[in-house]
Amino acid sequence: MIVTLTTDFGITDSFVGIMKGIILSTYSKAIIVDITHDIPAQDTKKAYYVLQQAARYFPPDTLHVIVVDPTVGSERRVIYVETEHQKFLAPDNGLLSFIEQSAIRNIYEICHSQYTLDNVSNTFHGRDIFAPIAGHLLGGVSPEKLGKKIEPLTMNRWLFPDPKIYNNNVCGEIVYIDHFGNLISNIHSSLVNMSAKAIRVNIQQTEIQGISQHYSEVPPENLLALFNSSNLLEIACNLGNAARKLGIKEGHPVRCSWD
Amino acid sequence: MIVTLTTDFGITDSFVGIMKGIILSTYSKAIIVDITHDIPAQDTKKAYYVLQQAARYFPPDTLHVIVVDPTVGSERRVIYVETEHQKFLAPDNGLLSFIEQSAIRNIYEICHSQYTLDNVSNTFHGRDIFAPIAGHLLGGVSPEKLGKKIEPLTMNRWLFPDPKIYNNNVCGEIVYIDHFGNLISNIHSSLVNMSAKAIRVNIQQTEIQGISQHYSEVPPENLLALFNSSNLLEIACNLGNAARKLGIKEGHPVRCSWD
Amino acid sequence: MIVTLTTDFGITDSFVGIMKGIILSTYSKAIIVDITHDIPAQDTKKAYYVLQQAARYFPPDTLHVIVVDPTVGSERRVIYVETEHQKFLAPDNGLLSFIEQSAIRNIYEICHSQYTLDNVSNTFHGRDIFAPIAGHLLGGVSPEKLGKKIEPLTMNRWLFPDPKIYNNNVCGEIVYIDHFGNLISNIHSSLVNMSAKAIRVNIQQTEIQGISQHYSEVPPENLLALFNSSNLLEIACNLGNAARKLGIKEGHPVRCSWD
Repeated sequence: MIVTLTTDFGITDSFVGIMKGIILSTYSKAIIVDITHDIPAQDTKKAYYVLQQAARYFPPDTLHVIVVDPTVGSERRVIYVETEHQKFLAPDNGLLSFIEQSAIRNIYEICHSQYTLDNVSNTFHGRDIFAPIAGHLLGGVSPEKLGKKIEPLTMNRWLFPDPKIYNNNVCGEIVYIDHFGNLISNIHSSLVNMSAKAIRVNIQQTEIQGISQHYSEVPPENLLALFNSSNLLEIACNLGNAARKLGIKEGHPVRCSWD
Repeated sequence: MIVTLTTDFGITDSFVGIMKGIILSTYSKAIIVDITHDIPAQDTKKAYYVLQQAARYFPPDTLHVIVVDPTVGSERRVIYVETEHQKFLAPDNGLLSFIEQSAIRNIYEICHSQYTLDNVSNTFHGRDIFAPIAGHLLGGVSPEKLGKKIEPLTMNRWLFPDPKIYNNNVCGEIVYIDHFGNLISNIHSSLVNMSAKAIRVNIQQTEIQGISQHYSEVPPENLLALFNSSNLLEIACNLGNAARKLGIKEGHPVRCSWD
Repeated sequence: MIVTLTTDFGITDSFVGIMKGIILSTYSKAIIVDITHDIPAQDTKKAYYVLQQAARYFPPDTLHVIVVDPTVGSERRVIYVETEHQKFLAPDNGLLSFIEQSAIRNIYEICHSQYTLDNVSNTFHGRDIFAPIAGHLLGGVSPEKLGKKIEPLTMNRWLFPDPKIYNNNVCGEIVYIDHFGNLISNIHSSLVNMSAKAIRVNIQQTEIQGISQHYSEVPPENLLALFNSSNLLEIACNLGNAARKLGIKEGHPVRCSWD
């Protein structure tokens, strides 16, 4: 049974090691896969995008544990969600919004009980709740024993504005900047007339003409636009860092237009 | 059999990969868990705190290998320590000081032999000694074959000053700063009169009034004090970084007092 | 079956997690070992050195997957190389140059087929080609089914200049700087008269007299020269960072001479 971990705990402290120790103490056959522990502190939105991309590539019944939890110790719930293909354990703070309402088969609120550590702290639920509950889920303990069933509708969800489309224009925004400095927007290729003659991408004062097929199509250090491996419009810099070159952060508007 | 790795090798070079390759070459069923490789170079004290926190959460008989080794290649010994629950392989430079004298069941000095790599270098004992010895220990080679039994009393130990207590005051220091910038002191909750009316924490010119239960109890970017998941006094900043905000490093004094 | 991963994907995004998910979906018993994902973006030479060091320490038949791929999506080939002891899957951009021509038993160009993901993208071959092909190789699919055999001679290779030797001098260069700031040269101990009385190392305006045996032989923050765990001349700084102290980058010349 595979369990993935995604946290903002970083990799310099004992937090992640402690979680793994507890998971393995609870279920010795766990196969633990780190997705990332380098989510910026408390950046639930970044965790959302990472999981939205990664979860579907794992084998069926993989359990994804996500601990990015700015309000740890407060009233927020810990939830366990089952879809047809995957399982998720996370704080109920919106970061599971990428799961469609209709895809939720079962959803539980996890309760403090004999399955969590004794004396649950208010600052480290990764250790006290998420790790032991994950171990018990992997070990086959029925979720009914770990919490109580709740209504899918009550799960906290974020609403993201869709790109705006008018005539031959789509206006969206940069939603994710990756390790290479690639600027990934929320403009899906299906919103763009890909057979149009001249496609332009505007961001800041920069206009990029034409859509590239791959990064090395333009000279080194030059900007380009392409539809990336998720079919989202991406602004990149061949052998360079587009985010640094343009000084752009998440949320920046971007426009794609054509003739 | 689980083996954990804690080093200051970083994750950009081949050091850690080489250790894992050798462990798996020596004992193919090893389950290798990284605790951290991001201990600051030669910072044995940081490694001490990380292991002190993490070791106990692993299954019984887990082998913890710690390679933070400023005097690698000199006369310092490599030791293997068995306690009732866990096993440790590390340089004898003080970083196993968190193991109580009375908890040590057996302790061995590891010797160069057919169980280490040929031609042990003076700069990379992680590869030449720690990894192959770990593999052989996991594989069931008796520690008597890997070294010679020594007296527990001869293990190098650090002495840490205890917090000073007088009247309604405890004066300690910051002993660890985590990835979030939380300042963790050596003041345990048992030293503080938790039922006192007014508890104050003083650090630098800052006074924090009252003990919080969790981080989000105060407004964003505000300082707070709480007893953390190890029951140690911690100064934190809700959704912020207390270490950066206060410009404080390990060793800084902190005082807790009450009426 | 062990598969190692070396990439420039970093550990903050979903890239590495996605690759692991696909490998485990394709071959559920894969034992995945990260060598590093912190190769600087597009730095194929760094990946070359890391693999050159690490590969040989893994058990026979380990599959090493390396994805540092500046021209992803262009015409460059993906190749699979079998030597007597190890297997390698990588873009054909030179980074497997550390494999001697004569050591290559079989080499294949990987083709897009039912064994790669549908709709191979032009930007993320780690996901679309390397991960599924690695999974199928681990699972025992014959390489003949995954691609076509090619001539070993056609593999892209880099040529590195050898150190120049004249009289009692060897002139080489810094080829790798590790996480500790140690400066590793291409001068092997076999090129130096180790029994000479006075051995000197010159780098920039600095002259280091004598070869040390280990780092702590000189006072803290002092420079030293030694032959490292690969028998290569290394300039280091005891308890410090030689690269930062000298402000030196890869490619800097270094000279070793003796009387």
